[in-house]
Amino acid sequence: MSSGIRSWFIDWYYPSQVGCIYGVKHYISSFKTKYQQIDLVELPFFGKALFIDGKLQSSLYDEYIYHETLVHPAMLLHGNPSKVLILGGGEGATLREVLRYDCVKHVVMVDIDGDFIEYSKRNLVEWHRGSFDDPRVELVIADGRKYIEESKDAFDVIIADLVDPLEGGPAVYLYTLEFYRLIYDRLSDNGVFVTQSGSLYFQEDVLRTIYKTLTQVFPAVEVYHTFVPAFFSEWSFTIASKSGRRASEMKAEYIDEMLAKHRINGLKAYDGVTHSRIFVLTKDFRERLARHSRIATDNEPIYIPLG
Amino acid sequence: MSSGIRSWFIDWYYPSQVGCIYGVKHYISSFKTKYQQIDLVELPFFGKALFIDGKLQSSLYDEYIYHETLVHPAMLLHGNPSKVLILGGGEGATLREVLRYDCVKHVVMVDIDGDFIEYSKRNLVEWHRGSFDDPRVELVIADGRKYIEESKDAFDVIIADLVDPLEGGPAVYLYTLEFYRLIYDRLSDNGVFVTQSGSLYFQEDVLRTIYKTLTQVFPAVEVYHTFVPAFFSEWSFTIASKSGRRASEMKAEYIDEMLAKHRINGLKAYDGVTHSRIFVLTKDFRERLARHSRIATDNEPIYIPLG
Amino acid sequence: MSSGIRSWFIDWYYPSQVGCIYGVKHYISSFKTKYQQIDLVELPFFGKALFIDGKLQSSLYDEYIYHETLVHPAMLLHGNPSKVLILGGGEGATLREVLRYDCVKHVVMVDIDGDFIEYSKRNLVEWHRGSFDDPRVELVIADGRKYIEESKDAFDVIIADLVDPLEGGPAVYLYTLEFYRLIYDRLSDNGVFVTQSGSLYFQEDVLRTIYKTLTQVFPAVEVYHTFVPAFFSEWSFTIASKSGRRASEMKAEYIDEMLAKHRINGLKAYDGVTHSRIFVLTKDFRERLARHSRIATDNEPIYIPLG
Amino acid sequence: MSSGIRSWFIDWYYPSQVGCIYGVKHYISSFKTKYQQIDLVELPFFGKALFIDGKLQSSLYDEYIYHETLVHPAMLLHGNPSKVLILGGGEGATLREVLRYDCVKHVVMVDIDGDFIEYSKRNLVEWHRGSFDDPRVELVIADGRKYIEESKDAFDVIIADLVDPLEGGPAVYLYTLEFYRLIYDRLSDNGVFVTQSGSLYFQEDVLRTIYKTLTQVFPAVEVYHTFVPAFFSEWSFTIASKSGRRASEMKAEYIDEMLAKHRINGLKAYDGVTHSRIFVLTKDFRERLARHSRIATDNEPIYIPLG
Repeated sequence: MSSGIRSWFIDWYYPSQVGCIYGVKHYISSFKTKYQQIDLVELPFFGKALFIDGKLQSSLYDEYIYHETLVHPAMLLHGNPSKVLILGGGEGATLREVLRYDCVKHVVMVDIDGDFIEYSKRNLVEWHRGSFDDPRVELVIADGRKYIEESKDAFDVIIADLVDPLEGGPAVYLYTLEFYRLIYDRLSDNGVFVTQSGSLYFQEDVLRTIYKTLTQVFPAVEVYHTFVPAFFSEWSFTIASKSGRRASEMKAEYIDEMLAKHRINGLKAYDGVTHSRIFVLTKDFRERLARHSRIATDNEPIYIPLG
Repeated sequence: MSSGIRSWFIDWYYPSQVGCIYGVKHYISSFKTKYQQIDLVELPFFGKALFIDGKLQSSLYDEYIYHETLVHPAMLLHGNPSKVLILGGGEGATLREVLRYDCVKHVVMVDIDGDFIEYSKRNLVEWHRGSFDDPRVELVIADGRKYIEESKDAFDVIIADLVDPLEGGPAVYLYTLEFYRLIYDRLSDNGVFVTQSGSLYFQEDVLRTIYKTLTQVFPAVEVYHTFVPAFFSEWSFTIASKSGRRASEMKAEYIDEMLAKHRINGLKAYDGVTHSRIFVLTKDFRERLARHSRIATDNEPIYIPLG
Repeated sequence: MSSGIRSWFIDWYYPSQVGCIYGVKHYISSFKTKYQQIDLVELPFFGKALFIDGKLQSSLYDEYIYHETLVHPAMLLHGNPSKVLILGGGEGATLREVLRYDCVKHVVMVDIDGDFIEYSKRNLVEWHRGSFDDPRVELVIADGRKYIEESKDAFDVIIADLVDPLEGGPAVYLYTLEFYRLIYDRLSDNGVFVTQSGSLYFQEDVLRTIYKTLTQVFPAVEVYHTFVPAFFSEWSFTIASKSGRRASEMKAEYIDEMLAKHRINGLKAYDGVTHSRIFVLTKDFRERLARHSRIATDNEPIYIPLG
Repeated sequence: MSSGIRSWFIDWYYPSQVGCIYGVKHYISSFKTKYQQIDLVELPFFGKALFIDGKLQSSLYDEYIYHETLVHPAMLLHGNPSKVLILGGGEGATLREVLRYDCVKHVVMVDIDGDFIEYSKRNLVEWHRGSFDDPRVELVIADGRKYIEESKDAFDVIIADLVDPLEGGPAVYLYTLEFYRLIYDRLSDNGVFVTQSGSLYFQEDVLRTIYKTLTQVFPAVEVYHTFVPAFFSEWSFTIASKSGRRASEMKAEYIDEMLAKHRINGLKAYDGVTHSRIFVLTKDFRERLARHSRIATDNEPIYIPLG
C-alpha cells in the first residue's frame, strides 16, 4: 500500500462486530509484564500511542483531553486539596495534572504493575514529564482495592484512573458498591472522588451502573463526558462529593477564576467554557441515565464481556 | 468466528491509517446508481445501516441524533419558517424532521440522484416514514449547485444535508464562497442556513474552512457539534443567519417553549438542555477555529483527499 | 482508498489468527436459505465469487481447477462409469464435469438445500452452464447421509463435493467410518469414491483422518492435491477404489489417451502431466500422513473447531 | 477477542484487494535499517516470523520448504559445487543449506544491508544456526548487481535469494536480461543459477518474464514450484544451467543417491519423490508459460506495482 502501512491494531467495542482500526507506522517497544502486554507504537495522525493488551490507552495527540478532563473538575470542586490519591494511571499523566496545584502537598499513586511503572518512567516521558521525580509523590505498588481496604489515611481527592472492568480482569472490584463505600471512608470531610467510567453508547450499561452505584454512597454524583478522538468515542467520568456540592453548579467564570488563583496555566482542553459544556447531558443519554436501576456489588459486579 | 460475522466495512478517515470497522450481519440490498454505490446492510449494534460508496451515512440506531441536530436549531432560529429548501438528504429523514412543523407550507428537496431517491422511497421507509408523500413536498432531481444558481425562490430555511466534499466528488462546489453567496441570495430576510460540516479533529480543516468561508457572507455564523456513535466521531454543523441572530443565544427554556409552541413532540436527542450543550465549544477546538484563516472558493475549494 | 474498495470478507483458517482477506468490488446478490447464508459478489482478481456462510466456495477465476481435479481422476480410474452420484456440489460445476462423459447415463445429485439449488439454477449459470437441464440428471433434495442410508442403488462413481466438516455443521457425519461403509455398499464392483478433503497444512488433521478412515474400508486409498488460488491453499482430495486399483498408477500417456477416447476436450487444469504431478506427495506431508492413526467415527467424528 | 489477538499484519498481493492476514501474538523486536523495516513477531500457527517492510519473508513453521527447495536442485544439478555465491538471503538459512555440502569450499554471500545481517546474526539463530561462523563463508556487504558487475570470480552455483522486484525497490535490476548475462559470465563451465521467482497465479507475470528472460541467456531453463503455507501461495523458482542439463531429467532415485553420496541428512521437504513433483507443471500454468513473450531489460524491467 502506498501509505507504507502493513500492520494494524483493531480495538473492538464488540469483538469482530464494532471497532476502531489503527494503522501502525512502526513499533517503538513491546513489553510483557506480569499483568499485561504493553505496546508503544507510532501511529499516523495520533502519533506515539500506548496499547495495553491491545487496547489503546492514550496517544500523544489527545491525551491532554482525557487527563485534563479527569483531574481538574475534581480538584476545583474540592477547592484546596492537599492530599490526593491516584489509583492506576501508570503513564504518569494524571499525576502530572495533579502536581500542577501548589496546594497539593502529598500524592499517593497506587498501581498494581511495578514493571509497567518502571517501563513508564523510562519510555513515557512525554506523558509524565518527570512527575515521578516530584518529592511530593509517593509511589505504592499494590492492588488498589487492597490498598484502600488497608489504608487509614484521609484524602481530599481520590482519582480512579483505571482500566475498564473487563470480564475477569483486575479492575472489576474497583467498580463496586463495597469499593465505593471504602472510598467514601478514605475521603476527608469535603472530599471528592472521580473515576473514569467508560464510553457513552458503546458500553453505556457500565457507565450508568457506576453512576447508580455511586448514588447509593455519595450525596451528590454527576456524570460528565467529552469526546476523545483516539478512543473514537464520547468518554465519561463520574464525580462524587461528600459535601453534596455539585460540579455542574460551578459556573464558567468561577472555574476560570479558580484556575487563575491556583496559577494553572497551559491547559489545552479545559477551562470554564469547556466545563460548562461537559457537564450538560443530551436528552437521550439523560433519560437513559435517569431510568437506570442496576447497581454493581462484589457479588454481582458489572463488567465488559470478552465476547 | 463464533459471532458468525465474516465480512466487514472499513470506513477510513485516512485511507489505511485511521478508521472504523463494522462487521456485517447480512446484506439487505445493493444497488448501483449512476452516481453512487448503495449498500443497505444489517449491522450488529447499529442495526440497519446505509453505506454510500462504502461510507456509512446513517444507521437506525442513531440517525435521530444527526437529523434532529441538523434541522431543529435552524428551524427555531428562524422561528416561523414557511418555505424550506433541503439540498441532498436522500434518506428522507431530514425531510421528516422539517415536516414536523405545521408552519411549513412548502419544502423543496433537491437531490442529484433520482435512482437513489426511488430506492429510498421503497427501501428506507424507517428513515423517511412516508415523508415523500406529504403534499407540501416538492421533489426536484437536479444538481444542488445548479438549482441554486437558477432558482428565483426565497426560502426561510435552507438545509444542506450533503455528502462530504470528497476529492473529485459531486459535493465539492457546494462548500465554496460562491455557493454560499448564492445561498444568501436565496434566503428570505431573516433566513437561516445550516450545513453539515463534517468531523471534528479527523477532518477539521474542512469544517474550519466552511465556518470561515460562511463568515465572509453572513453576519452571524456558529459551529455546533454532537457525538454520532455510528460515525465514531463528534459531528459538526455550521449555522448562519441573515439577521445576525445567533443560535447560541437561545436559552434552554426558550428552546423548550418554542418546541412546545410548534407542538414538536417525540424528539429523542434535542431539547433545550441539549441545545445548551451542543453550542458550547471546548477550549482546544475554540482556539483552532479562531486561528483559522483559509476560505474555500470555486478556484480553490476545500476537499477531503482520497489518499 | 483509491482502489474504491471499502468492504472485505475475511476467510479465517483459524479465527482471528490466520486467514485470507478479499476486497469486495460490489455485491451481486445475498440470500439466506434455511441452511446457509449465500453471498454472490464481484471480487477484484478472482471475479465473480460465491461465499457460503462467509467462506469462499468458488470463484470464476479458478473454479475449473477445483472441479476438474475433483472429478476426472475418479471418472478415469473407473474407466467407463454409467451411473454417478454427486453429494453436494450445489453450484452445478461438478455436475458439469461429470456430464462431459457420454458413457454416463444417469447422474443423481443430492443436496440438502433446495433453496440454494434454485438460487444456483438462476444465478450461477457461469458455473453449471445449464447442466441442471440435462435429461440424464436426477436432482434429489435430501440429506446426503440419509440418502445413502436409504438408497438401494449401485453407482460406478460417487463424488462427495461437500462443505468442510465444521463443528456443529451439517457435514460432520459425511466424513465418518460408518458413512464410508455405506458408500462402499452403494458402489458397484469396481466403483470409485472421491471426496474433497480440505486444506493441506492448515487443516491437515482433518484430511489425514479422512484418509486413514477410508483405509479401514477400501483396499486402495490415495490423497492427491493441487493449489487453488482463491483458497490460498493446497487443496486435497481423497480417492478410494473398491477394486484396489490406484489412480497414481495411471501414467500421463494413459490419462491423455483416456481423455481422448472419452472425447473430453477443453479441460484447463487437468491432463496426463497434471495428473502425474498431483498424485505425488512431498516428503513432509508424506511422512505426516504415514504416521497418522486417528480415524473418524459417528461417535468421535473429526471436525474443524469454530474457534 | 477471546484469542487475545488484537493486532494484525496484512500482506496484500494486490493492495486492499487480495491478501493474507496474520494475527500477531506479540512483537519480539522491531528494527529499522537504512534499507528496510524489520519486524520479528510471534504468530499463531506459524510461530516466529520475519516481516520485512510488512511482507512476510519466512516463518519457523515452514522456512525449510522454501530454503530446501531453493538450494538443493541447483546443488545437485551441478553435482559437485566447490564455489557458491548467494545473493541476498540475509536470514542465513540459504547459507545453512549450502553448507550441508562438504564439497563446498567457499561461499560468498552478498547482501546490501549490513545492519540487517548484524541483526540476523543475533536474532535469527533459529534460521542460520550459526552458519555465519563457518570458516568457508565470506560475507560481503554490497549491492548484488554491483558485486556481479565488478567480480572476476567464477562460481559453480549462484543462488539469488532476493526480495521480489517491487516497484522502485532495490531488487528490480536483479531480474533483468543484462543482469542474467553477467550471472552467466560469472558461472564456471557447468555452472547453475537459481532464483526465487515469486508467486504462481498472483504475480505470475513476473515469474513468466523471469523465465522468458533467462531463456535468452541460458541453454536450459526450467520453472519449478511448491506450496509455502506462510506465503499462502504456490511459490516458484527458476533454474538455469550453462551446460544445458535440465533438473527435471534427474529421476527420484538419482536425487536420493546424490543426497546420500553428499551425506545430506535431515531434509524435511526435499527428496527424490518431492523433486519429481515440483518439476511437473499443471496444464494451465504450462500453457501460460509457453505463450509468454515479455522479457525484462534494464530499460524495461518487470516489477510488482505498489498499487
